[in-house]
Amino acid sequence: MAGWDAENLSDDKYLNGRLQIWQPRVGYRAGVDPVLLAAAVNARAGQHVLELGCGVGTASLCLGTRVPDLRLTGLEIQADHAALAMANGRRNSADFEVVTGDLMAMPACLKARQFDHVIANPPYFDRGASTVSPHPAREMAMGIAAPLEAWITAAAKRCAPKGYVHVIHRAERLPDLIAAAAGVLGSIEVLPLIPRVGRAAQLVVFRARRGGRADFRLWDGVVMHKGARHQKDEESYTDQLVNILRHGAALEFSGTG
Amino acid sequence: MAGWDAENLSDDKYLNGRLQIWQPRVGYRAGVDPVLLAAAVNARAGQHVLELGCGVGTASLCLGTRVPDLRLTGLEIQADHAALAMANGRRNSADFEVVTGDLMAMPACLKARQFDHVIANPPYFDRGASTVSPHPAREMAMGIAAPLEAWITAAAKRCAPKGYVHVIHRAERLPDLIAAAAGVLGSIEVLPLIPRVGRAAQLVVFRARRGGRADFRLWDGVVMHKGARHQKDEESYTDQLVNILRHGAALEFSGTG
Repeated sequence: MAGWDAENLSDDKYLNGRLQIWQPRVGYRAGVDPVLLAAAVNARAGQHVLELGCGVGTASLCLGTRVPDLRLTGLEIQADHAALAMANGRRNSADFEVVTGDLMAMPACLKARQFDHVIANPPYFDRGASTVSPHPAREMAMGIAAPLEAWITAAAKRCAPKGYVHVIHRAERLPDLIAAAAGVLGSIEVLPLIPRVGRAAQLVVFRARRGGRADFRLWDGVVMHKGARHQKDEESYTDQLVNILRHGAALEFSGTG
Repeated sequence: MAGWDAENLSDDKYLNGRLQIWQPRVGYRAGVDPVLLAAAVNARAGQHVLELGCGVGTASLCLGTRVPDLRLTGLEIQADHAALAMANGRRNSADFEVVTGDLMAMPACLKARQFDHVIANPPYFDRGASTVSPHPAREMAMGIAAPLEAWITAAAKRCAPKGYVHVIHRAERLPDLIAAAAGVLGSIEVLPLIPRVGRAAQLVVFRARRGGRADFRLWDGVVMHKGARHQKDEESYTDQLVNILRHGAALEFSGTG
């Protein structure tokens, strides 16, 4: 499969099996983060979406499963992952074009275009703060590549006027996301993802608009797990998370209250 | 009373009547914000607390009611409000010293000191964005005075190493709070105050430490009102808010889950 030996790949179901994704058994493996990112994107049928650092394509393909008639494009620096993303697009019958390249040296075919939406799930660890991984692919996904600011700058440049940028990232990097967006994106909205009631956010979904001028908005957080704060975080998703992860529901910033 | 005609003052009860505060009937009047600010401050008995822009002293005196043996100091630019703050301190038997002066030109008696805690409820509207008020005191409280950055800078300077700064402010100014703290304060924690479940935060409590190096933390928000999102925000406080506003409970960042 796309240059991979089948034994090195796992075949994982997402969205209650509506989506099937091949991904490497070893190295960086997507958790729920790309599914949550895809659920948060307010795309409408017919729009063009670019995913920076698409990996094996999970976020883009989840989004394409929820919203019909999107034209999806992914940029991925690792050629073998880009090949898997393309294969994953084909098997899920998605309109998903994948470009191999570096967001710090944007390929000409993307440089010429702007998109209604740019989405990204950037690597979570900066080079300086993390130890060297024995797995080069994991290493790449974990942060030897572009710094967070470069992701936001690239997203803003590829975003059409009034278009949206959505990024999911560790909550502790929110100040860096906000700083990176200053001057290039506006109308920032932040949706905290809270592991359990009363805890600090683990992740945030960061939404911003090219040319946006609305006030910053910090939304009521989405609680991911039921139960007391010291329980393990497994198999205890709240109803809202089950709706998103299993039934492909949207993740609305404005809540349901 | 302290240069005021009694007819121009109201006498308001806070914390279920444990605190009584004179404040002007006309112009800026404290809502629940100073009470929430005071509830969020993690001060311990014997510590020194400085409030920048203390107005009539509500936040400092609420804090002194909850935490015993604090030494409270307020800085207030309007002499008539400072006089009321001192009178309010005396009638509530608080150790509350009030200095009249401008945080942009810190009085020498404060410049010589550092505090375990610096707290502030800065004016909510920037000069540029608000219309001119017919009430000079309201005008002053609403923002012709120091910009938000100056509040954070002054707070950081008056804060002892490892001391805490707590600020309550409009949620839409969070990016400005974070930017102002860069380089002068660390270990930032943000507690969103959510009007009702699923809504955007109206206010945030911003906590930071002088010399702090911990990761940024965004806490699960505190919901202020019960019920559906389109109800009026009156007389519908959640149990947690009732405990804080009426019974003087602390506002814990780590929640109760």
